[in-house]
Amino acid sequence: MMNVPLTVGSLLERAEKFFPKKMVISRTLSGIHRLTYKEIGERTRRLASALEKLGVKQGDKVGTFAWNHHRHLEGYFAAPGMGAVLHTINIRLSAEHITYIVNNAEDKVLLIDEDLLPLIEKVSDQFNCVKAYVIMTDKDVLPETSLAPVYSYEELLKEGDPGFEFVKDIDENAPAGMCYTSATTGNPKGVLYSHRGIVLHSYAAGLADTIGLSESDVCLAVVPMFHVNAWGLPFAATWFGSTQVMPGPQFTPKLLVELIEQEQVTLTAGVPTIWLGVLKELETGNYDTSSLRVILCGGSAAPRGMIKTFESKYNIPFLHAYGMTETTPLVTVSRLKSYQENLDLEEKLDIRSKQGLLVPGLEMKVVSGDGEVEWNGQEMGELLIRGPWIADEYYRDERTKDAFRDGWLYTGDVATVDEEGVIKLVDRTKDLIKSGGEWISSVDLENALMAHEAVFEASVISVPHPQWQERPLACVVLKEPFKGKVNKQELLDFIAPQFAKWWLPDDIIFMEEIPKTSVGKFLKRALRDQLKDHLVNNS
Amino acid sequence: MMNVPLTVGSLLERAEKFFPKKMVISRTLSGIHRLTYKEIGERTRRLASALEKLGVKQGDKVGTFAWNHHRHLEGYFAAPGMGAVLHTINIRLSAEHITYIVNNAEDKVLLIDEDLLPLIEKVSDQFNCVKAYVIMTDKDVLPETSLAPVYSYEELLKEGDPGFEFVKDIDENAPAGMCYTSATTGNPKGVLYSHRGIVLHSYAAGLADTIGLSESDVCLAVVPMFHVNAWGLPFAATWFGSTQVMPGPQFTPKLLVELIEQEQVTLTAGVPTIWLGVLKELETGNYDTSSLRVILCGGSAAPRGMIKTFESKYNIPFLHAYGMTETTPLVTVSRLKSYQENLDLEEKLDIRSKQGLLVPGLEMKVVSGDGEVEWNGQEMGELLIRGPWIADEYYRDERTKDAFRDGWLYTGDVATVDEEGVIKLVDRTKDLIKSGGEWISSVDLENALMAHEAVFEASVISVPHPQWQERPLACVVLKEPFKGKVNKQELLDFIAPQFAKWWLPDDIIFMEEIPKTSVGKFLKRALRDQLKDHLVNNS
Repeated sequence: MMNVPLTVGSLLERAEKFFPKKMVISRTLSGIHRLTYKEIGERTRRLASALEKLGVKQGDKVGTFAWNHHRHLEGYFAAPGMGAVLHTINIRLSAEHITYIVNNAEDKVLLIDEDLLPLIEKVSDQFNCVKAYVIMTDKDVLPETSLAPVYSYEELLKEGDPGFEFVKDIDENAPAGMCYTSATTGNPKGVLYSHRGIVLHSYAAGLADTIGLSESDVCLAVVPMFHVNAWGLPFAATWFGSTQVMPGPQFTPKLLVELIEQEQVTLTAGVPTIWLGVLKELETGNYDTSSLRVILCGGSAAPRGMIKTFESKYNIPFLHAYGMTETTPLVTVSRLKSYQENLDLEEKLDIRSKQGLLVPGLEMKVVSGDGEVEWNGQEMGELLIRGPWIADEYYRDERTKDAFRDGWLYTGDVATVDEEGVIKLVDRTKDLIKSGGEWISSVDLENALMAHEAVFEASVISVPHPQWQERPLACVVLKEPFKGKVNKQELLDFIAPQFAKWWLPDDIIFMEEIPKTSVGKFLKRALRDQLKDHLVNNS
Repeated sequence: MMNVPLTVGSLLERAEKFFPKKMVISRTLSGIHRLTYKEIGERTRRLASALEKLGVKQGDKVGTFAWNHHRHLEGYFAAPGMGAVLHTINIRLSAEHITYIVNNAEDKVLLIDEDLLPLIEKVSDQFNCVKAYVIMTDKDVLPETSLAPVYSYEELLKEGDPGFEFVKDIDENAPAGMCYTSATTGNPKGVLYSHRGIVLHSYAAGLADTIGLSESDVCLAVVPMFHVNAWGLPFAATWFGSTQVMPGPQFTPKLLVELIEQEQVTLTAGVPTIWLGVLKELETGNYDTSSLRVILCGGSAAPRGMIKTFESKYNIPFLHAYGMTETTPLVTVSRLKSYQENLDLEEKLDIRSKQGLLVPGLEMKVVSGDGEVEWNGQEMGELLIRGPWIADEYYRDERTKDAFRDGWLYTGDVATVDEEGVIKLVDRTKDLIKSGGEWISSVDLENALMAHEAVFEASVISVPHPQWQERPLACVVLKEPFKGKVNKQELLDFIAPQFAKWWLPDDIIFMEEIPKTSVGKFLKRALRDQLKDHLVNNS
């Protein structure tokens, strides 16, 4: 067969050729912009030629610091199209981490949203690699800035070459994109995405049995473009000629629902907290969301009740998926098999609330100390993944050796697999409780506790125990009206019917607040440090 | 990203792991067999280990001479799974051509259907490479045969290893399959399919915007498994866990319709003549074909009227596709773009009767002498294709240099491209008429002539002309009742309104019969030889 490399540039070329009239609908600070793929194509080529003039060479990193909008999309294709690497920087990182990753990636040029300038200005004197700052603004005049040298995105495009040719003879294993994932301790860890990985991932996203992304879709990626390439949707949606709607800066649930209604969005994608907000908005307003064929939800587990409400009350099908920065990210999608369609509604919801089935092209193993676990929905083990869009290292980072071993990615996620091969995540390896050689899921206990009407938040951690090595300990924040009115035993009695006796927490500690990470996850490490002697002293 | 090769063996492994209960429903001489993918997987591994014991090594060719059934499917995965190459032999070839391709491919082992034995026995003394003949029979006792050494497929499986491991570390560019395409003159030409090509092609077949093959499909490939891998459906359907229905030997339209009804087939695929037969059968019987979501049709152009009848009368959506042996074969699929859904029925049918849009992953060009043609639905040129599942040579064949040039496959098909990028085939390059520097499509003239009630067959050829270099000449066979009652001028007047004046044939010659190839196509070469002086002498 012909030796034709899989390249990111070819994805946009297909949209330019076959879907030149289809639209990208982009919200920026100045309002809604409507551009055809023909225009996006020309602008992308102009951008690529401008980057070249700024000194960007094949293999160089081009950083973006931006919301989801058409200029960011142009960067998605311009950098890989010229053989450079698109490095999407998470705008929510700390100043320290932004500095670290820009320098670790050695970004040559940064494309920055106007409203995000202050975040970069604060740290730019620490950058030791950036040769040019490009401001993505709608205005004719550049804003005042301490950055230098600084360029206007639109001015650069005016001088750029709309006929710039994307590189064709590039090695498909060369990097095309890059994203950093935050670590529990220390600096974020960089992941490189190859041309091959992104194209194969785009195929995977277009399969009828996964997301089924199609030309007929109007795709609203709410998941940020600085977060694992917005789950790869901008690449795949462009390739297939889907209409894309990009929500821009500082959107609200209300704005999202309005976009869905106005632009007749068919597919939208984001994390559970987004959909909790959207659900609240749907309950207050009178919106027509009938264009939606699916809400794609990942990033963390979607509450079963939320899925049910969307489907039964608003008739919007929910699609649960799982992946991580290291996996480009699509790993599983939770769809029913055809012979499960006859199950009753609750049974179907049980299955669809899990993380789902491995997408075609990947391999998985779930291993505990004794080897691969049985597929019985009970036995727990760490999920290992392998495949052509799975990273094989952290960029210039010695933590590579912990996560990538024997050709597998050790995800750090603990899962069960049922008889049908459906994965359910039960915990992070480091949060799992190992009691007398048996594993206990902190997540299951937390979910059970949080189902109690008095509980606002619950975090279950593992603490050392003289006899059982580790035992679960629950940290609970009560809702205001219930404070002082609910005791430990009441909560333990409430969850007891759902668990084996030895799963129940040895103690419940009521707190005013549970410490959290910058992205709002429980900081269990802090709790473990604080409470490490609790059972030793009290036993 | 991880360096994980794309392999054919991994496709079956997915079905074994995630769809072990799904079924392959296979008709052989003894009736219907129902096997799960778990069973197919074990049998395939047994077969692979048996082939190894017979001396098959990595890179060796394993020939099959068989109908569509489960044993043929096992061969599809056993040979590539062990690193060998599956060579599917067209059972309809002449004895001379069968001999040529077995020797050209150097088949080490042949897997042969019992009822097809005589065809091989007739020529086997000419084979200079075959070390073992394996008879695929349902019976316990091998039939009498002159072939030697000869083995029973099922006996080999009994002794085989159900835990045989597929090769993992194979180069994805290594050949996995092989098929010969017939040539106008000379021997058939061999095409090798790589592991990479087959896997990428399978992705392409699962996209929502192409065939959308899914786990929920019940897939009946009527197109023979000896013909371009049954369009790749057995590979893709296995990967996605679709139910497969295999019609076995000597099927009739009635049998096909019964299978569709009984097995609740959702997707079926074959050439137009199959569907013409099925249409006739539907008209005689009282069948329930409501399970069908799509008929996939390729191989040659489907008549517009037939598409319309299936859709309007039987409510069975038709999907027109195009490809060739050299292209694995999927090149285009004819689907409407979302904004074309509002066109009226006839306009939509006009679009869907064309060959369609290029599938994601390929590149195309349509070139005439002056470079690429304009996309206006008028200008004609030769279709060139490029991509990772397109062949780059004929196997050990010097005709390679004619078809594969500058990194492109010259398809020999003449096409127009409309403003939407939709391809319509208008002729074969060698049949096109070049009159005074302008091109005239023989196919268009033939279709126009055959629409006349008196015309049974019409073949339009190019003949030399002193002034215009070439001019069209029509050879027409009249239906019995019209013989002697219709004259040339009547036919010319009939088609005149559809064409520019200079397109009209210079003469019409009435014949008793038009010479045909072994597969029933017009043998235009013979007509051209016979009539080459017609216009020179008569002008």
